[in-house]
Amino acid sequence: MASSKASPEPLAIGIDIGGTGTKYGIVDRVGNVLFSGSMSTKKHAQVEPFIDELYKKVTELIDKAGGVGRMKGIGVGAPNGNFYTGTVEYAPNLPWKGIIPLSKLLQDKFKLPVILTNDANAAAEGEMIYGAAKGMKDFIMITLGTGVGSGIVANGKLIYGHDGFAGELGHTIVIPDGRVHEGTGKKGSLESYASATGVRLTTLEMLKNSNTPSALRKIAADEIDSKKVYDAAIAGDELAKSVYEFTGKILGLALANAVMFSSPEAIILFGGLTKAGELILKPTRESMEANLIKVFQNKVKILVSHLKESDAAILGASALAWEVG
Amino acid sequence: MASSKASPEPLAIGIDIGGTGTKYGIVDRVGNVLFSGSMSTKKHAQVEPFIDELYKKVTELIDKAGGVGRMKGIGVGAPNGNFYTGTVEYAPNLPWKGIIPLSKLLQDKFKLPVILTNDANAAAEGEMIYGAAKGMKDFIMITLGTGVGSGIVANGKLIYGHDGFAGELGHTIVIPDGRVHEGTGKKGSLESYASATGVRLTTLEMLKNSNTPSALRKIAADEIDSKKVYDAAIAGDELAKSVYEFTGKILGLALANAVMFSSPEAIILFGGLTKAGELILKPTRESMEANLIKVFQNKVKILVSHLKESDAAILGASALAWEVG
Repeated sequence: MASSKASPEPLAIGIDIGGTGTKYGIVDRVGNVLFSGSMSTKKHAQVEPFIDELYKKVTELIDKAGGVGRMKGIGVGAPNGNFYTGTVEYAPNLPWKGIIPLSKLLQDKFKLPVILTNDANAAAEGEMIYGAAKGMKDFIMITLGTGVGSGIVANGKLIYGHDGFAGELGHTIVIPDGRVHEGTGKKGSLESYASATGVRLTTLEMLKNSNTPSALRKIAADEIDSKKVYDAAIAGDELAKSVYEFTGKILGLALANAVMFSSPEAIILFGGLTKAGELILKPTRESMEANLIKVFQNKVKILVSHLKESDAAILGASALAWEVG
Repeated sequence: MASSKASPEPLAIGIDIGGTGTKYGIVDRVGNVLFSGSMSTKKHAQVEPFIDELYKKVTELIDKAGGVGRMKGIGVGAPNGNFYTGTVEYAPNLPWKGIIPLSKLLQDKFKLPVILTNDANAAAEGEMIYGAAKGMKDFIMITLGTGVGSGIVANGKLIYGHDGFAGELGHTIVIPDGRVHEGTGKKGSLESYASATGVRLTTLEMLKNSNTPSALRKIAADEIDSKKVYDAAIAGDELAKSVYEFTGKILGLALANAVMFSSPEAIILFGGLTKAGELILKPTRESMEANLIKVFQNKVKILVSHLKESDAAILGASALAWEVG
């Protein structure tokens, strides 16, 4: 006779590896983070002791959540994480150099299937499984933080490209011969404008090239950052507001180009810059519409992610695990 | 006892509808155009008599090719053709206005499954099934003719987007506040530079803004077209050659942005502009590589379609028919 006991609902493990810290958690099918924790990444100059500590900490959570048998798999988001090879390749912000076979190391340790991708692609998966893109087959996720990351979904699948590196919208050139990007040396990329770093640089340029009175003139140049510009803009500072106008104009142009490329149902924004709300969203929307040809106009939603910021990275990574066959 | 007679190999019908003329043909699985013909599009102010004539002409070929039972289906490439709805929507270059339910009209007449898409997407299908992209899962097709069309393939599938209109790379903005596009009114789109029209306009600008001696100065402005610029460049004319340098520089920038978006294995070029060979390919390649971040450099092939130009449109359209379930 068959047992009447229902088998427990499967769970997914999400691990988000950042340059400073690593977050991990156990997530159910609808996106509740049941258990979570964090640890330092940067204190581990070698990847093996990092994996050892991570294994120990995550295993404690697995035991609390009903044991390894309930775990569908492990999803990992990491800078320069390659979906196809399961490796992290030359990530400038991680302590481990060269090509790290991260998926294999985790798989050998946990005896669970592991899926790896970069953080922006993981964020897109998170939105598709639990968030604002639930049920969408065509959308673009853009993370506006220190840098600009993106994940592109078409026909219901993430676009990884032939080598696993697709979705670098942040590095597309929007202003030919524009501002030099410190990291890449390229001129006029989206990331050099529509990031926290870009907002800081635009502010410094505007302070230098205009006479508009501004509360920001009382702050030393070295100390001006996107947070201070945001505070000033919210307080009504005209110069700070025009920084967002300018940033939104460039972001909107890049979004228009992305829309004419893959015609998404929505563009989902996440990260620090979105905190400025309509200050950034209004010029972005207007610039996007102005640069679209008619057939694309007034169709594409610009949405702000509604995932809790503290959970988003774990959710994004865990979303990958549901793809395990 | 089972019959020993092998059932005949299935065939596909391809129909390419252009503003002036319509080409049609019957194609086998490996891309041989077995029978083909053409007729006028523009003489039919109404779509119904157009369909009637097309039905009569294509049916003659079907009979020659072994009857309708051998036909897998009909693929149709048409400007503004929408894959999802099977309609042609507000095509400025076709005689029929508004929304035309082209797939339904053809299906009712031929009693065969019909798949419709725009010409650039059909070209991409053609390259994937019979041409330079055979076996590729990630590539971008770009047609450089009077205008610039594109078809983007990722994860082995064409990207149609949420509404069927994806792949308008020609309308992406490469030079903000650049040249005005006569048709769309937008400034600085790829099509306003990297098309036959764009080459003509660039030439006129260069003739006006420089003193470089050129054989083209002997030709009336109205008569300068991309063909004459090509002839001059081949004959060694410096100004004509710099037109291609300039055009390639802009095209290469747009290709770099496309590569950082979807990371294709190859970009396949087709159409008039590619006849200039290395004159246009060299600056295009150099500009693309110069604008790519490292992880994408020296990886992406720029290929010129090797499908016979007279067959390419029919092949592209017919390729759609193999997708019939």
